[in-house]
Amino acid sequence: MSGAQPRTAVIIGAGLAGCLMACYLARAGWRIAVFERRPDPRAKGYVGGRSINLALSVRGIAGLAGAELADLVVQREAIPMRGRMIHPATTGPLVFQPYSANPTDAINSVSRAGLNLTLLHAAAELPGVSFHFDHPCHDVDLEAPAAIMTDPSGAIVRAQADLILGCDGAFSPVRLRLQKTDRFDYSQSYLRHGYKELHIPPAPGGGFVMEPNALHIWPRGGAMMIALPNRDASFTCTLFWPFEGEHAFAALADRAAVEAFFRAHYADAVPLMPALTEDFARNPTSSLVTVRCAPWTHGGSVAVLGDAAHAIVPFYGQGMNCAFEDCRELAACLAHAPRDQAGALAEFERRRKPNADAIADMALENFIEMRDLAGRPDFQYRKKIEQALHKHHGDRLTPQYNLVSFSTVPYAVAQRRGREMDALLRAVAQRVPPPVSFDQAWHAAIVAAAEPLLGSITPIEPAGAVSVRP
Amino acid sequence: MSGAQPRTAVIIGAGLAGCLMACYLARAGWRIAVFERRPDPRAKGYVGGRSINLALSVRGIAGLAGAELADLVVQREAIPMRGRMIHPATTGPLVFQPYSANPTDAINSVSRAGLNLTLLHAAAELPGVSFHFDHPCHDVDLEAPAAIMTDPSGAIVRAQADLILGCDGAFSPVRLRLQKTDRFDYSQSYLRHGYKELHIPPAPGGGFVMEPNALHIWPRGGAMMIALPNRDASFTCTLFWPFEGEHAFAALADRAAVEAFFRAHYADAVPLMPALTEDFARNPTSSLVTVRCAPWTHGGSVAVLGDAAHAIVPFYGQGMNCAFEDCRELAACLAHAPRDQAGALAEFERRRKPNADAIADMALENFIEMRDLAGRPDFQYRKKIEQALHKHHGDRLTPQYNLVSFSTVPYAVAQRRGREMDALLRAVAQRVPPPVSFDQAWHAAIVAAAEPLLGSITPIEPAGAVSVRP
Repeated sequence: MSGAQPRTAVIIGAGLAGCLMACYLARAGWRIAVFERRPDPRAKGYVGGRSINLALSVRGIAGLAGAELADLVVQREAIPMRGRMIHPATTGPLVFQPYSANPTDAINSVSRAGLNLTLLHAAAELPGVSFHFDHPCHDVDLEAPAAIMTDPSGAIVRAQADLILGCDGAFSPVRLRLQKTDRFDYSQSYLRHGYKELHIPPAPGGGFVMEPNALHIWPRGGAMMIALPNRDASFTCTLFWPFEGEHAFAALADRAAVEAFFRAHYADAVPLMPALTEDFARNPTSSLVTVRCAPWTHGGSVAVLGDAAHAIVPFYGQGMNCAFEDCRELAACLAHAPRDQAGALAEFERRRKPNADAIADMALENFIEMRDLAGRPDFQYRKKIEQALHKHHGDRLTPQYNLVSFSTVPYAVAQRRGREMDALLRAVAQRVPPPVSFDQAWHAAIVAAAEPLLGSITPIEPAGAVSVRP
Repeated sequence: MSGAQPRTAVIIGAGLAGCLMACYLARAGWRIAVFERRPDPRAKGYVGGRSINLALSVRGIAGLAGAELADLVVQREAIPMRGRMIHPATTGPLVFQPYSANPTDAINSVSRAGLNLTLLHAAAELPGVSFHFDHPCHDVDLEAPAAIMTDPSGAIVRAQADLILGCDGAFSPVRLRLQKTDRFDYSQSYLRHGYKELHIPPAPGGGFVMEPNALHIWPRGGAMMIALPNRDASFTCTLFWPFEGEHAFAALADRAAVEAFFRAHYADAVPLMPALTEDFARNPTSSLVTVRCAPWTHGGSVAVLGDAAHAIVPFYGQGMNCAFEDCRELAACLAHAPRDQAGALAEFERRRKPNADAIADMALENFIEMRDLAGRPDFQYRKKIEQALHKHHGDRLTPQYNLVSFSTVPYAVAQRRGREMDALLRAVAQRVPPPVSFDQAWHAAIVAAAEPLLGSITPIEPAGAVSVRP
């Protein structure tokens, strides 16, 4: 390929996926122009969506590693969270549920703003990458192909390239253009829950006021609050409540009502949130959408990826991780077929679409697990059995959560494993009721109860089961 | 209400639903402006979508009756079809499957263009109705509320009213505006099948060349052709084939291939279609979409109905019938709560949404029934049992098809009945195998076999079961 003209790409969106994709393509010798509707965060500070922290797990790290960014991000920006810390509704001890039988497995709390800046700097330093901020995209010429933007003066900018990539998020203008083509399947489905962020500051003398290496959850049945640690020793809390009905945003009309409601339902958090009622009044309540569409590609030269192709709800912490896996896979497909871009895009969609559908489903299911099941004794008991069996049988019985968060096994495979394990765990829990103490006898009993059921668990290809770790 | 200012409505779309809705509102004393993007068919001839005939059944007739249009349409424009005439793949006798044990039950073939003109004339003759053709709607001001159109000179026309109704079809601009509001659920899902229309002219001396009082079907497994009679003694045929793959549009590259393919798969129709290869080459291949969305209404003053709210595939012949039922129900809700328009719109959606979802599902299921099952002996036998049991038990065992096409029972109730009946029929067919002749002994056997299963059939409220007939 030496001496040939470099291939050219236009990327719409300088968010997480757009910047990482630019890194991948630049390292493969492409020339890339990235257009972003927001201002340059390097100059003007970060103006992003509303979710402040993200949970970076192995797929995301693998995606970063392909662009040689994993060490930088994990060492400089992440706080490992090794399990869920459950805050019960009534007074009582906190319950720690480790994410894995392996104590080094963790998901990592990272700041969206910080990570986006890191990726932007990394991409901007690579040869052949140019960034164009304050350039909203409002159309795509699918045939050229070219993206159509407005520059800050209001002039139309038309950018033609070999490849147009929509990394432009859940409300993607690129996808909106694809949606106007015939036979484009599309759905957007909202939860009846919204989210609102709140803040827990560091202790007066500095330091965390709760366990930092955990994802804190206040499961309340139809609603919940979570908190993720930040590097400045604060926590970002997020309420996931129904818009209307019981335990709902609409129910709290004034500050006194907010204060009283939190004292009743989130009592242990109230002393940690000095600005609770101000934050509640000031911060927006945002909606939660799942977007599915097909096809993701058009004419062998236009594609969407990340949230633009498959926006999901945040309850598995996989939106960014899935987007980074998209970047890695798309780069691999393009590298594998350098003379057949249409084939590469088709192969990308063939590989990723079933997995994007699977994580969309699992993310919806995990909301029920987090807000409701995680607080229930029968569920906690099944989780305990699951981890004991995982420890006993090793990779043969890796749970769904571990496959999703601590491996790069395809999401669809993890989803199947989850269904199979759920049936097995219910059967074992029925045969071996919760013991007085989790002793050797109990361990032997659950291993024996599971034995005849092991055939119901589909083995996973050894290659796919290899974990990628930082 | 006398002396009060009349309520005002803007209707987008002068198609079937828009014209009928205008009739309903005008008769209730509203002032209505109807805006349509196409030219006036009274002056310039009908320029419509591509489907030429429609099957008008009891729901549609009831919708017309509410505006006192049923007699006119049924007597002047309809050809009753009392069952399916199955054309087998291999040489063999045609099989007639009556739609109902009641020989007077029929669905009615009507011309879309003729019916649209009839409704347009009817609406235009009523006081307070104005029509504005060549006025495409491109936005809605949801707060005013007002619809924004362009007139033929290119000038912007803004029409404000108490109520804005989107009767603007599957690709509704009004719905597109609702889609931009937060928490609007939306999906569009295409079949991998498309459709193309063909023509069977009258006999040389006039008259029909096939049975006129039937809907003709050539079921071919994954694909089919159907034909509906027209008042001029011609038939309109429609191919429903996959775009790609076997028995697909993409497979037939030239006229010789078309001719050979039809001789192989639709042999009995070929002599009846002198312009087959010309029609095949010239007529477009169109796609088939199911659209679902929620909410259908906004702010108590904007609503979508008909295809704009719930476009469905045509295989149950219910798209127009469902839209006419929408018109009737919306008019009833508005009349019932004259001082609470927001409540009336909410009640309309509450009543109709589950039923629109049900007919969308049943229409997709009926495609499989028509193209595949209808040609199979085991299915034909179950249909025979179904009709015998219906005759024996009367309203207690009305089949799903009859509830959908020959009653105004809610679609969701018909859907449940279909599932229950299907299980019962499979059980009876298993216990009583197909006989040598359908004699009294067979009849007694199936009645006896069904007897212990009757409890599985949920009774239908007597009020809902009353059929509306022209």
